[in-house]
Amino acid sequence: MDRRTFLTSAVAATAFSAVGGRSSASAGQAPPALRDVKLLVFDTFGTVVDWRSAVIAEGQALGKAKGFTVDWPAFADAWRAGYGPAMNRVRSGELPWTKLDVLHRATLDTLLVRFKITGLSPQEVDHLNRVWHRLKGWPDSVDGLTRLKKKFVIAPLSNGNVSLLTNMGKFAGLPWDAILSTELVRHYKPDRETYLMPGEFFDLPHEQVMMVAAHVGDLRSAKALGLRTAYVHRPLEYGTARQSTAPAAGTFDLQVGDMRALATALGT
Amino acid sequence: MDRRTFLTSAVAATAFSAVGGRSSASAGQAPPALRDVKLLVFDTFGTVVDWRSAVIAEGQALGKAKGFTVDWPAFADAWRAGYGPAMNRVRSGELPWTKLDVLHRATLDTLLVRFKITGLSPQEVDHLNRVWHRLKGWPDSVDGLTRLKKKFVIAPLSNGNVSLLTNMGKFAGLPWDAILSTELVRHYKPDRETYLMPGEFFDLPHEQVMMVAAHVGDLRSAKALGLRTAYVHRPLEYGTARQSTAPAAGTFDLQVGDMRALATALGT
Repeated sequence: MDRRTFLTSAVAATAFSAVGGRSSASAGQAPPALRDVKLLVFDTFGTVVDWRSAVIAEGQALGKAKGFTVDWPAFADAWRAGYGPAMNRVRSGELPWTKLDVLHRATLDTLLVRFKITGLSPQEVDHLNRVWHRLKGWPDSVDGLTRLKKKFVIAPLSNGNVSLLTNMGKFAGLPWDAILSTELVRHYKPDRETYLMPGEFFDLPHEQVMMVAAHVGDLRSAKALGLRTAYVHRPLEYGTARQSTAPAAGTFDLQVGDMRALATALGT
Repeated sequence: MDRRTFLTSAVAATAFSAVGGRSSASAGQAPPALRDVKLLVFDTFGTVVDWRSAVIAEGQALGKAKGFTVDWPAFADAWRAGYGPAMNRVRSGELPWTKLDVLHRATLDTLLVRFKITGLSPQEVDHLNRVWHRLKGWPDSVDGLTRLKKKFVIAPLSNGNVSLLTNMGKFAGLPWDAILSTELVRHYKPDRETYLMPGEFFDLPHEQVMMVAAHVGDLRSAKALGLRTAYVHRPLEYGTARQSTAPAAGTFDLQVGDMRALATALGT
């Protein structure tokens, strides 16, 4: 089954079908169960932006400038693989609240040794660490978010710290209405405080808040607390060799192929 | 002395002269002492948006629709006059943290009695209370902020709660990069926690953060903690009968007539 077929069948049994920008609903109408949704909050890394390509590209440019050879895809994957364990050290209480930039830097410091990257000045290491502030959207992200912003309040709900998400928004041209970083509640997803934050700030019952993510675990945590959920399929987040598969049809309120399809599905 | 003359003389002794969009510095250059500024944070009520006109206009429309007559300028001024005392009840510890929407509502409830406004449904009172989410920028605000956003991170630093500032941004078309509400630190200005927040979120020394406001007290508090300061003269914030006067020349790093002039003064 190719990707298009797979996605089409996966969404067939959901309340609404919207893949690749096409939609079977009347124009301008969201599914009835979703008509009260006011606020859309987005996972960012992998869902809105393509972190892996950016880390690889900056690494390659750095290696070329400095004259060293590194397996940059492996480096990018190793850096990302350090993300969950580092946050879990905070979530478990082993570390006090620590912003993601600092966790990224601790992982980077070990990777510089492991990948034998030497000769970088402290400023160059700092700059490399902030590559996570310089990620670009997937090709559909800016357009889809711009459409969604006309009807909904849109904000990231990400483990990236406030400055990271703000700088990323400027760099990638993401038209956020507000920056909802989990730093604001000093908890990392999937701690429940993070998913409850948007409704509390906006005085909305949780069913009027929709979590948008490419990751099933993130959506399951949001759904368990009463938020609406939209799954965006981003099979290439980890490259062609490790493509993700979409969840079973009907697992979430919506299941779409990209942000343009989400805009269409929500009637914008 | 007319307004233009007053302003021109008031800024003559400051590091930089920029009134009404004209500037004596070379194009694209900020004053040397301000060249490291990265983040601009803005007071909003009165500085970026014209709260008084909006409250009066919505009140007049409501009165017309409902058939009652109220002195809406007096009503607007009385509502705003309740702002400082209400926040002080939180700042003093008399009340636990309470968001501005709730403080506005408590003041509104007393004003409905005092101005003999009856016959509003709970939904209509809620809607009126949220007029503070529906304020428009001064005529120069969107243009000035759009220019400033190209070079700086721009965010409100306001006592408005997160949803109020986010909705106001959408309503007025203010191109904020992030929403820095004092709600994020559960303190109201001028508590020091509020002014220290931007530098902490963005890992910037305070001299790389500039507070922009039309109110001398706000700027004095920011300056005392090491932030850079820009005074924007908004003489009509309280109407023509109660025009504010600008502070003495040299009191703050910059003193300008509007947001376009601020953009010019900062080299954008």
